[in-house]
Amino acid sequence: MRDFSVDHRWLSLNTATVRKQGSLVEIVEACARRGIRAIDPWRDQVASVGLDRAVRAVRDAGLELSGYCRGGMFVADAAHRIEVRDDNRRVIDEAKALGAPCIVLVAGGLPQYSRVGSAASRDIAQARTQVHDGIAEMLEYATQANMPLAIEPLHPAYAADRACVNTTRQALDLCDALDPKRTGMLGVALDVYHIWWDFELMPQITRAGKDRLLAFHVCDWLVPTKDILNDRGMMGDGVIDIKSVRAAVEAQGFAGYSEIEIFSNAWWQKPMDEVLWTCIERHRSVV
Amino acid sequence: MRDFSVDHRWLSLNTATVRKQGSLVEIVEACARRGIRAIDPWRDQVASVGLDRAVRAVRDAGLELSGYCRGGMFVADAAHRIEVRDDNRRVIDEAKALGAPCIVLVAGGLPQYSRVGSAASRDIAQARTQVHDGIAEMLEYATQANMPLAIEPLHPAYAADRACVNTTRQALDLCDALDPKRTGMLGVALDVYHIWWDFELMPQITRAGKDRLLAFHVCDWLVPTKDILNDRGMMGDGVIDIKSVRAAVEAQGFAGYSEIEIFSNAWWQKPMDEVLWTCIERHRSVV
Repeated sequence: MRDFSVDHRWLSLNTATVRKQGSLVEIVEACARRGIRAIDPWRDQVASVGLDRAVRAVRDAGLELSGYCRGGMFVADAAHRIEVRDDNRRVIDEAKALGAPCIVLVAGGLPQYSRVGSAASRDIAQARTQVHDGIAEMLEYATQANMPLAIEPLHPAYAADRACVNTTRQALDLCDALDPKRTGMLGVALDVYHIWWDFELMPQITRAGKDRLLAFHVCDWLVPTKDILNDRGMMGDGVIDIKSVRAAVEAQGFAGYSEIEIFSNAWWQKPMDEVLWTCIERHRSVV
Repeated sequence: MRDFSVDHRWLSLNTATVRKQGSLVEIVEACARRGIRAIDPWRDQVASVGLDRAVRAVRDAGLELSGYCRGGMFVADAAHRIEVRDDNRRVIDEAKALGAPCIVLVAGGLPQYSRVGSAASRDIAQARTQVHDGIAEMLEYATQANMPLAIEPLHPAYAADRACVNTTRQALDLCDALDPKRTGMLGVALDVYHIWWDFELMPQITRAGKDRLLAFHVCDWLVPTKDILNDRGMMGDGVIDIKSVRAAVEAQGFAGYSEIEIFSNAWWQKPMDEVLWTCIERHRSVV
């Protein structure tokens, strides 16, 4: 297991962590000042400064990407299927332009939440079928572009509105079904917030192996969690034994960035520099 | 699949659903007036009227029980282990006195939340080991008393503070480990709120079979869920396809009560009669 205590060379910042404090360009510049070497930007943050300017800012700051957030939201009614396909092709094009190593996929939940305007449904089994088929379709274009896709299992609390892929086992079942030859083009993005509770986590990480482990995200689970979406904790403030999960992914050979992604009404209210300073300190002490 | 549309003979009321509106005795009387034939009372509600009076009220009203809530909370530090054992023996004695068909087990999460005063820990694997060992110990006393234990997998959102048993597969793994001969003394209590999201739900219900299916609870998952503990929905107000889950348990031979358990700040503010009336109507229309 790598020693993170001496520096923060393996820290990546998911830019949603400070999305309320500045534009993507400002975040990139702040990361560069702090010696943070990598980011994972969100599409809306890229769009609001413009793709070309985002590409330049990342390149000028000498940053790498640890991923691009996000593709997916595959569940829709028939009227929105073309939108899903085209939207996910654009994600791939953007990720290529930005030099991302992979795209994080959030699968989508029920159609009325995944694609606004879709007819409402309670059929989560049907949603899962659409996710399977949607990834299969996206994977063709991604493979042509040589852009790996990382399925992120989301906490079951998001099953209805964000993702009906909710465990590492389920995500890996999809990988095995759609990429049985393990081409390197399909894997998982594991965020401790979503998966820490799972009694099967450790054997499923072993099952994943290095070539399916495309991204590793950290934050913490607070007790109580006051807001199911925007009350994630800074590492060390909650109950997750983060080091044991990192040890497990690194035992499989994962050697990439440890990406900090914190959706938090509390941390969004603090100055960007304080958040970044705290991220670096916690990365070294508890990740 | 039984036809629930014509009457509510298979409706049981978990008394937490109206815990803010009256004492257990008042709830029992209200159920009797409404033709509700069964309840699942909580220990604190029994304690506050006294066990003898609770037993008399249930008997005088001609009610059955569909379960008794709750045993468990097995996770504790060494100083609290005896408390855990003795507490769970008392649950069994109470359940016998009340004529309950089973005890619902909520496993416990991390020790600091499961047993107040226990030393804090982030070791959820250790918590799971304690749950295994605690159920094993409790099962001996329960078997002597001929009182079945129903492990309730709780939603992963409660893994830290309430239960580190979070999927049907995990609960059934425990059953198979501790009761390999399927004696009828150990099974599961399945609540749609906790398990609806699980991609393995249907095959795991099949795996459970009739003799492991000891209780079936219903409510609904609201989007958004504003409070992770106390914002459960009335059946029909959320996204769960309840009928498909009931069909699956009944396909295994489950023929017991469909128990309504709703923790809801919103429903606790309504008059008891309105809640019961709504429960009956929804039981007939959407369960």
